[in-house]
Amino acid sequence: MYPQLSPHAKTLYAKLTAFVDEECLPAEELYERQHAELSSRWMIPEIIETLKGKARKLGLWNLFMMERDVYHSGLNMVEYAVLSEVMGRSFLAPEACNCNAPDTGNMEVLAKYGNARQQAQWLNPLMKGSIRSTFLMTEPGVASSDATNIATSFRREGDEYVVNGRKWWSSGAMHPRCQVALVLGKVDSPVTAAAPRHRQHSILIVPMATPGVKVLRALSVFGFDDAPHGHAEVELVEVRVPVSNLILGEGDGFKIAQGRLGPGRIHHCMRAIGLSERVLGLATKRALTRRAFGKEIARQGAVQRDLAQCRISVDQARLLVLHAAWRMDTNKGAKGAQQEIAMIKVVAPSAGQQVVDTAIQIHGGMGVCQDTILARAFAYMRSLRIADGPDDVHMRTVARYELKKAMEGATGPAADAWYRSGGEVAKENGQSRL
Amino acid sequence: MYPQLSPHAKTLYAKLTAFVDEECLPAEELYERQHAELSSRWMIPEIIETLKGKARKLGLWNLFMMERDVYHSGLNMVEYAVLSEVMGRSFLAPEACNCNAPDTGNMEVLAKYGNARQQAQWLNPLMKGSIRSTFLMTEPGVASSDATNIATSFRREGDEYVVNGRKWWSSGAMHPRCQVALVLGKVDSPVTAAAPRHRQHSILIVPMATPGVKVLRALSVFGFDDAPHGHAEVELVEVRVPVSNLILGEGDGFKIAQGRLGPGRIHHCMRAIGLSERVLGLATKRALTRRAFGKEIARQGAVQRDLAQCRISVDQARLLVLHAAWRMDTNKGAKGAQQEIAMIKVVAPSAGQQVVDTAIQIHGGMGVCQDTILARAFAYMRSLRIADGPDDVHMRTVARYELKKAMEGATGPAADAWYRSGGEVAKENGQSRL
Amino acid sequence: MYPQLSPHAKTLYAKLTAFVDEECLPAEELYERQHAELSSRWMIPEIIETLKGKARKLGLWNLFMMERDVYHSGLNMVEYAVLSEVMGRSFLAPEACNCNAPDTGNMEVLAKYGNARQQAQWLNPLMKGSIRSTFLMTEPGVASSDATNIATSFRREGDEYVVNGRKWWSSGAMHPRCQVALVLGKVDSPVTAAAPRHRQHSILIVPMATPGVKVLRALSVFGFDDAPHGHAEVELVEVRVPVSNLILGEGDGFKIAQGRLGPGRIHHCMRAIGLSERVLGLATKRALTRRAFGKEIARQGAVQRDLAQCRISVDQARLLVLHAAWRMDTNKGAKGAQQEIAMIKVVAPSAGQQVVDTAIQIHGGMGVCQDTILARAFAYMRSLRIADGPDDVHMRTVARYELKKAMEGATGPAADAWYRSGGEVAKENGQSRL
Amino acid sequence: MYPQLSPHAKTLYAKLTAFVDEECLPAEELYERQHAELSSRWMIPEIIETLKGKARKLGLWNLFMMERDVYHSGLNMVEYAVLSEVMGRSFLAPEACNCNAPDTGNMEVLAKYGNARQQAQWLNPLMKGSIRSTFLMTEPGVASSDATNIATSFRREGDEYVVNGRKWWSSGAMHPRCQVALVLGKVDSPVTAAAPRHRQHSILIVPMATPGVKVLRALSVFGFDDAPHGHAEVELVEVRVPVSNLILGEGDGFKIAQGRLGPGRIHHCMRAIGLSERVLGLATKRALTRRAFGKEIARQGAVQRDLAQCRISVDQARLLVLHAAWRMDTNKGAKGAQQEIAMIKVVAPSAGQQVVDTAIQIHGGMGVCQDTILARAFAYMRSLRIADGPDDVHMRTVARYELKKAMEGATGPAADAWYRSGGEVAKENGQSRL
Repeated sequence: MYPQLSPHAKTLYAKLTAFVDEECLPAEELYERQHAELSSRWMIPEIIETLKGKARKLGLWNLFMMERDVYHSGLNMVEYAVLSEVMGRSFLAPEACNCNAPDTGNMEVLAKYGNARQQAQWLNPLMKGSIRSTFLMTEPGVASSDATNIATSFRREGDEYVVNGRKWWSSGAMHPRCQVALVLGKVDSPVTAAAPRHRQHSILIVPMATPGVKVLRALSVFGFDDAPHGHAEVELVEVRVPVSNLILGEGDGFKIAQGRLGPGRIHHCMRAIGLSERVLGLATKRALTRRAFGKEIARQGAVQRDLAQCRISVDQARLLVLHAAWRMDTNKGAKGAQQEIAMIKVVAPSAGQQVVDTAIQIHGGMGVCQDTILARAFAYMRSLRIADGPDDVHMRTVARYELKKAMEGATGPAADAWYRSGGEVAKENGQSRL
Repeated sequence: MYPQLSPHAKTLYAKLTAFVDEECLPAEELYERQHAELSSRWMIPEIIETLKGKARKLGLWNLFMMERDVYHSGLNMVEYAVLSEVMGRSFLAPEACNCNAPDTGNMEVLAKYGNARQQAQWLNPLMKGSIRSTFLMTEPGVASSDATNIATSFRREGDEYVVNGRKWWSSGAMHPRCQVALVLGKVDSPVTAAAPRHRQHSILIVPMATPGVKVLRALSVFGFDDAPHGHAEVELVEVRVPVSNLILGEGDGFKIAQGRLGPGRIHHCMRAIGLSERVLGLATKRALTRRAFGKEIARQGAVQRDLAQCRISVDQARLLVLHAAWRMDTNKGAKGAQQEIAMIKVVAPSAGQQVVDTAIQIHGGMGVCQDTILARAFAYMRSLRIADGPDDVHMRTVARYELKKAMEGATGPAADAWYRSGGEVAKENGQSRL
Repeated sequence: MYPQLSPHAKTLYAKLTAFVDEECLPAEELYERQHAELSSRWMIPEIIETLKGKARKLGLWNLFMMERDVYHSGLNMVEYAVLSEVMGRSFLAPEACNCNAPDTGNMEVLAKYGNARQQAQWLNPLMKGSIRSTFLMTEPGVASSDATNIATSFRREGDEYVVNGRKWWSSGAMHPRCQVALVLGKVDSPVTAAAPRHRQHSILIVPMATPGVKVLRALSVFGFDDAPHGHAEVELVEVRVPVSNLILGEGDGFKIAQGRLGPGRIHHCMRAIGLSERVLGLATKRALTRRAFGKEIARQGAVQRDLAQCRISVDQARLLVLHAAWRMDTNKGAKGAQQEIAMIKVVAPSAGQQVVDTAIQIHGGMGVCQDTILARAFAYMRSLRIADGPDDVHMRTVARYELKKAMEGATGPAADAWYRSGGEVAKENGQSRL
Repeated sequence: MYPQLSPHAKTLYAKLTAFVDEECLPAEELYERQHAELSSRWMIPEIIETLKGKARKLGLWNLFMMERDVYHSGLNMVEYAVLSEVMGRSFLAPEACNCNAPDTGNMEVLAKYGNARQQAQWLNPLMKGSIRSTFLMTEPGVASSDATNIATSFRREGDEYVVNGRKWWSSGAMHPRCQVALVLGKVDSPVTAAAPRHRQHSILIVPMATPGVKVLRALSVFGFDDAPHGHAEVELVEVRVPVSNLILGEGDGFKIAQGRLGPGRIHHCMRAIGLSERVLGLATKRALTRRAFGKEIARQGAVQRDLAQCRISVDQARLLVLHAAWRMDTNKGAKGAQQEIAMIKVVAPSAGQQVVDTAIQIHGGMGVCQDTILARAFAYMRSLRIADGPDDVHMRTVARYELKKAMEGATGPAADAWYRSGGEVAKENGQSRL
């Protein structure tokens, strides 16, 4: 049931595990120290560049990339999912390996949909890790859970689009190296207004240095500012970019965004699982070392039940995410795995939230303060239940597929077609691996 | 992530799916009608024998058996798990395929631990489906969740054991063809008394016709008597059997019982999942056809959330059980998969209970009465949270492994060893498939 | 916080507690024995008449009645709620005290809305306990959770209505003394068709002996038939009753039904709480007497957590129901307490279901079979989450009031008005007690 | 069911409601602004002193105090609970009314157990609000959930105790006006060592200015430092105080602490409920104003179910806490209400956490950032599940009482004695009100 890794993936797994366990995790304390000593919270601790250098030398670089032969990591989605869990254990590993959101999604978009010029200008430095990017989608003025609400306007004037709007939760926009944004908005034209709701939006490349791009403030998440990465509120006032900065065509915005979200959800969820494992390990160790009422709390029945539930939740979440990744590998990508992807987006953060909540309870006061990673992990899990669509939106998607199947008179579980085919699809996928 | 079936398993899957969908499910109504017309609830409707004949002719017979070459079904545990789900859809299919509890477990025990004489006398007719058996373990007088409490005594007198005790939840003991019982008890001797708690019990073969075996009454489950299979309370009063009826040696009782329980839990859980799928299908169809407050209830957000949660729970349960089966295939059988098996024993019945509860709510009054399978399915799921050990016992097992791992300083998830090895184990297992 | 009972209520409380604990609970076993010996499950064990005689002599009779001075029990809703909990402890007490559904609701309707002739003919014998009644509302063909779906037709022909329709969950209709039904249906006329959805239904008195009233079958609840009370499916084919059997006027059906449901929900919920207390007592005692893994299971932390949760759930449910009853007493009856009544209808059965589920788990196999009241109690609690409107319908009501309050700009909790008034309303209510 | 307030309490309720709604809530923004402009986070915004002045002038001052006639607020516990909910709505109100933890508890201790000198020196300025205090109990080195673990040592030398230990979660210790600490520790003597576990601890008054008292750092709660109140880690190194600073005698520590915790839990819980109401109001308003998928999210069934669940949870929590307060008023104080107090300590924060979690989900990204009170409210609720004993400790207490009752053969719910007595106790309490 655990995936069989290719020799290439096996090698990467071994190297990455060693890198995360021996380099990233021990460096977290140094990172905090260096960060505390910087003159601004929005500067980058030096150690992160050291780690990036090591990761690149080890070939642990851009592992997420499955577009464009030249950049292809040689992994399929399942294999990258396995590696994502390992990276998720440490807050530093994803960036160290140039595999952190939102850059991964932006790079995928540029690799898949960008033209040669766009790729030369933005994709190449992003893949090198020399610049960072942000994705400007969510808006404070509307319920962005229904993305068709998004209202930022692109007004065509000659060879330029003039962008006006207000965005927030623009993760990474505060990063000192953030040089470019992909912006989702609506072209202000009769053609757009007449298009179906899901064909009205477009994506523009907007350099952060363009006049009118105003990073207003940093948003906090349960009191954490997540500096120097951060989440910004950004105002766009009469921001002018050439029309050649459009990715694909007008109205292709959701098509592009969707392509971005499928893999992104696998990444997010597997990282959440990696973090959950780390947290569960902390809870277990704590339970073994604290005594109350005459015995270690690990020996109390109620604590045992809680720990067991965590183990079950994490193992179930992992299997479900790997399963979704495998569906993407074997069933036409994210399109053929939408129900599965919707499921994991609910399950993995919820499981993670529950695991962290249990760990906090077992740690007592220490669990909510700065002495452990737990409070921060909680903020991460909790906000993940909102980011990329709140739980209810995904639950609706899961239900819609279920109802559709029933209306089409389908019987039996989804696995049925697979068993009948006996794995032919998988073989084909294995062959097409690179 | 779904297992790759061998050509043999693939063929069986196709045949079994057709058999269950086209023969067993449509026969359920006839079965009920025939049963209602019999002069006693403890007689067998004729249709079940017809189905058994068909299944045997199709080679859908004794699929569970993985002991003894001559009887081996040619399936590994994962493959049989897949087939168990299919059988679980219909209340008739397991018996039709001679794959129903408790006979499967008893046959496994006889195949694995019985001597040639015992096998000739009891295993052969069981494998043919001409007789049925029961397993006498649980006792009304003690908390059987802690099996070391079991108190039925085996008193040695010459070449005989004299059995005294009271058992209940002896499933199948009321069946008109039930001819033999495997009885768990304690030899009444100083050697036994001095042995460690887990080495005090033994298993004896007791023919049901032996004087002193008294089937006292049928137990009901939420008002259902599950006739003609049933669950009996049985008294054993001065029951004499030859010492040669002992399976293995004195004190081997738990060793034998454990070997029986691992596969049995896979079977139970996968059947529960098959039933859950059927129930979820009923709920979905019902939601699509009932209107309230101006629209189909399938279009109500709260109902959609419930249906989505069911889909998630069932898919997660399936993956976890397949995973446990796969661990058994690749990691030294049930012994190497104890934590995984403990997890599924909690997860699959709980998921099933939740799915049935949701389906009942969607059906309204119809859901609790005799017009659907739901009330009976509920009783099945609910009692499965007690049978073979209540949830809490399994949760404790899960926790114990978690704590043990932590005390040994293990880091990383259980999957780690697998990824490192890159699937060597699986290959080896594949080779040894038959 | 517990209500202050009037001297009259205090006396009744003491007498009722003694009657239930010393007469009803000990009689349950005899009742079962007598019932088992009757030639039909639809006959009445003699003991119930004995108990009725005792209750009547003790003045523990028709305690629910708050309409019509001559019959008024002298209790307010809170006081009767307190007594309902006591009656809920025993399956026999409500009938023994002539306080059982659906007769209570039917008597309330007749007392409140019936004319003198209707009262003389039906209310009087019901109050005497010499006949029984049923309420024909739910229909198998429509989602009755939305009661406007109800389709049974009343066709006016001269001085008669001709009734056609199919009803089910007609509780009490199988009872050998059931002589009359209140039937909810729609007059077949253009006036009705043009009326608002909630003004289209009417209620007719239909004697069970009227030609065309066909009790088709008994419905089971999780395998229990609840005989001799039972739940019937009833067909009405060209059933003719005089127009004078209409209660109030055409279109008044929901108005009447609503008046019936408010108090009924208080009764149901308090009885569920009484039963929950009994069940929790059983669970606690069982936990104290069973040993597993070296100690009483009452000493296991996980079991303690479960028992504590039960205590919390029951106490919270009780307070909420008493609170709703108090709102009815002090805020214009059921109309002024709709949000509160909707809340309890979800809370009390859910709490009860959870308590019984826990008790079953603590009892192990014994918990699901006929040896305790648990399986039957579970069936009662579970079906109560559907009867009188499924949970989701009530949750929607709760939400609707919450949203309405917000739209009206109300601030602060509902208690606010009460605190400000400082209890004036309560005093007024106290004065008007009788 | 809502308590009948005395005329005095009614007047206070009206004044307090106006003060909180019209003064405190509107001042929160100003408070934040003033705080942001101070040179240190550990300085006090001016507005708080303004509010204190107003509250004192209005007589909304020291309302919690029920010890010592001269200071007695004239309220009973139920009445103060009602007022606590009102104060809980605003983060500023408790301090404005000199009713904030931990000072309230410290003042109660001094009023109840302090001698005249201790009261003159510390109680009087605390009651005036001119100084603040802290309570040093929890220790980082031990599981303080089992308070007998607490290890800080009091070494007697002549007329002095020499205190050594490390404390944390010393709330209020960072406050610029904090001048005194009550410290829980163990006298280092053979007498103490030989005493029963619950008679080994003592409480000492330690002025913060005493040499050796070192406030090491501020602890954060989910990223919030709660300045200028804050939670400190404090080291005590050879801190010398006169033996006359002992409250009561050696070994009386837990007796004193218990007396402090009962009322404190009522206060905490009711404030949590006040905050929950505020949060639920925010969620409801948000749901009414955001549109997604073609309608306001308030019209989505799943959101309605969530809002309804919040309303139910808050109303049930309120009733339970008022009930516990009423038990204290009518049943010998906290001692006679231990099970009830344990229940509320689990229920109110859990309900609060659930309400805030729902509100966050409804707010989306806005819910986790600094633009609402939600993230901070979440941190408050979540940490309240740990403060004053983690949930499991209280659940154990609830269970222990339940088991004790069963062992003593008690039948019927706790309310029974009350109903039987018919409210005599309450009357007596009403008379003794002041």
